[in-house]
Amino acid sequence: MTGYRLTPLAESLPSTVPFVGPETQERQNGRPFRARLGANESLFGPSPRAVVALEQASREIWKYGDSISHDLREALARAHRVAPDHIMVGEGIDGILGYLVRLIVAPGDAVVTSDGAYPTFNYHVAGFGGVLHKVAYVDDHEDPAALFAKAAEVGAKLVYMSNPDNPMGTWHDGAALAHAIDAHLPEGCLLVLDEAYIEFAPDGTAPEIDPNDPRVIRTRTFSKIHGMAGARVGYAIGAPGLIAAFDRVRNHFGMNRAAQAGALAALLDTAYTAQTRAAAERARDRIAEIAAAHGLTSLPSATNFVAVDLGGDGALAQRFLTEMNARGVFIRMPGVAPLDRCVRISCGRDEDLDILEEEFGPALEIARQG
Amino acid sequence: MTGYRLTPLAESLPSTVPFVGPETQERQNGRPFRARLGANESLFGPSPRAVVALEQASREIWKYGDSISHDLREALARAHRVAPDHIMVGEGIDGILGYLVRLIVAPGDAVVTSDGAYPTFNYHVAGFGGVLHKVAYVDDHEDPAALFAKAAEVGAKLVYMSNPDNPMGTWHDGAALAHAIDAHLPEGCLLVLDEAYIEFAPDGTAPEIDPNDPRVIRTRTFSKIHGMAGARVGYAIGAPGLIAAFDRVRNHFGMNRAAQAGALAALLDTAYTAQTRAAAERARDRIAEIAAAHGLTSLPSATNFVAVDLGGDGALAQRFLTEMNARGVFIRMPGVAPLDRCVRISCGRDEDLDILEEEFGPALEIARQG
Repeated sequence: MTGYRLTPLAESLPSTVPFVGPETQERQNGRPFRARLGANESLFGPSPRAVVALEQASREIWKYGDSISHDLREALARAHRVAPDHIMVGEGIDGILGYLVRLIVAPGDAVVTSDGAYPTFNYHVAGFGGVLHKVAYVDDHEDPAALFAKAAEVGAKLVYMSNPDNPMGTWHDGAALAHAIDAHLPEGCLLVLDEAYIEFAPDGTAPEIDPNDPRVIRTRTFSKIHGMAGARVGYAIGAPGLIAAFDRVRNHFGMNRAAQAGALAALLDTAYTAQTRAAAERARDRIAEIAAAHGLTSLPSATNFVAVDLGGDGALAQRFLTEMNARGVFIRMPGVAPLDRCVRISCGRDEDLDILEEEFGPALEIARQG
Repeated sequence: MTGYRLTPLAESLPSTVPFVGPETQERQNGRPFRARLGANESLFGPSPRAVVALEQASREIWKYGDSISHDLREALARAHRVAPDHIMVGEGIDGILGYLVRLIVAPGDAVVTSDGAYPTFNYHVAGFGGVLHKVAYVDDHEDPAALFAKAAEVGAKLVYMSNPDNPMGTWHDGAALAHAIDAHLPEGCLLVLDEAYIEFAPDGTAPEIDPNDPRVIRTRTFSKIHGMAGARVGYAIGAPGLIAAFDRVRNHFGMNRAAQAGALAALLDTAYTAQTRAAAERARDRIAEIAAAHGLTSLPSATNFVAVDLGGDGALAQRFLTEMNARGVFIRMPGVAPLDRCVRISCGRDEDLDILEEEFGPALEIARQG
């Protein structure tokens, strides 16, 4: 009995997944995590106004969402001083990256990213048959000059860069980045500038880019500063022709209706956004203090997480991470050397960081015993 | 300034969309619809238990959803007496169809469907470069023998069939369909059996199919009987190898967390499901009565909508539909002849069908004037 026949590309894809979810780990551990600090979610939660909007929308969930996310898109356009046709609303940055790669990358096409940067982007590139070329981080920063030089060398159609960076939390000044784009981004290569964490960064981190510039598409999200990771709302800002192209491949009725309403409420609650930003700053300082109390340095961060340098190799960091997870503290770590000497710890509330502080020393001691 | 370069496939795709959403029409009309009867949503709403689950999850929306939808998948497996590895949970049937077409259909591959069947399936096939072959409905029914014969003729990798059918509401007996599959589905061709409306159908409409059978994948949804279209939760039932293949391409953290919880609560509230089924049956009868009062016949339906035969051509139905929409009654119609002599009207509450009844006669009179 012969059944389905996968495409040759689908046959060739590995069945590994970019990330194991914390719930999967919790089921393996037999108990919930005490502090959920591994996925850079916002433990400060969504705006109370967003919660009200979500709750109100629950009773209307029998209706499909608005297929063009009209109200949210208009509000985002106003907030960014662009036109609605510069904005693509989608199912989180992950969903948008999937559509974008599908639009740009045919089998064999070259794509450039940093070695150790966002695995889900790489997953999409592999999934559409693209050929990934990676350049190294320099001093724990992504290196735009090297990324763009590699893109020129291999004739890349797409180059990925996050600013601020995930997983290291480092960042580039916006003006310097804009200069690098003008000077070095090769013709015919689209830069995906992932700004998932931009609202946590110092003013001036976001480069000024003409929204009609067809060389750059920026991605933003409600999963981080807005505390709505579970809602799956992201958006891209780009040239109208590119934004319109998403209509050729996107799932037109794919947006959750309550998420659309919740995101709109969150966007408009700027006071709450400022409060979350301040809370994340305090949490970054405290994570660094906890690490410092054990003689460890932390990387300066422009995000809602901190990369703590354990001062050893990837094996040490992995042992520490495993031990922390076993103690109920969910954290993650970069996947490649030399970034993997660090662990990545999300900002949390005082009670979350109390648990982090309590377990940090004992876990470190065990990890150091090897 | 050269920017992005789309793939040749993306360049070739039309920018038309499968459906215009009701909100878009409302904005064009300058007022909301009075009766939303065009998208086969469930106007009876979700289970109150699902609403509670959605509301409770709103406060936890800062967490990403469970990447494997573990609890929902387990509950679905129990409900269908299969194993969890027979179940793929995804972002509505639309999302699942997109993943499935991507897994199976490479550019140039043949796919078979019925002329006038689900446009979003066709959209996905075109979007991945597949070549669509269509067979005609016979007496307003999809024709499995013709579908499978065409699939054999063109060497199709995928054949789509809905049972009960959308947009006509007709259905095939499950045993007859199972026989047709065994007798005529060609080797190496996967049948997508879309059972979005199966819970509204007479017992025996769902064919008995071994869940390990690699020739068939069935799709189900929380958008119809469960009244959660805006939540985007669908699932597929299929052979474990095929279900596992979705992990190679799906958006692993793409499920809305609240939707996962709401769907689980809805699934378990079987009393509410029975209530909705009964309410839909009453509404079908009333829609047929309203049509009959104007001398029109309706097709027997095993869904939550009724195809009303206006007794003319597509132009007449289009005029009626336009007039109804202008009067605040959102309905849709099939896209091709001879199905397009009908309009498709979703089941609604008494107050929705009161409005339908009120506007039906005047709109029909105007439509008949041409």
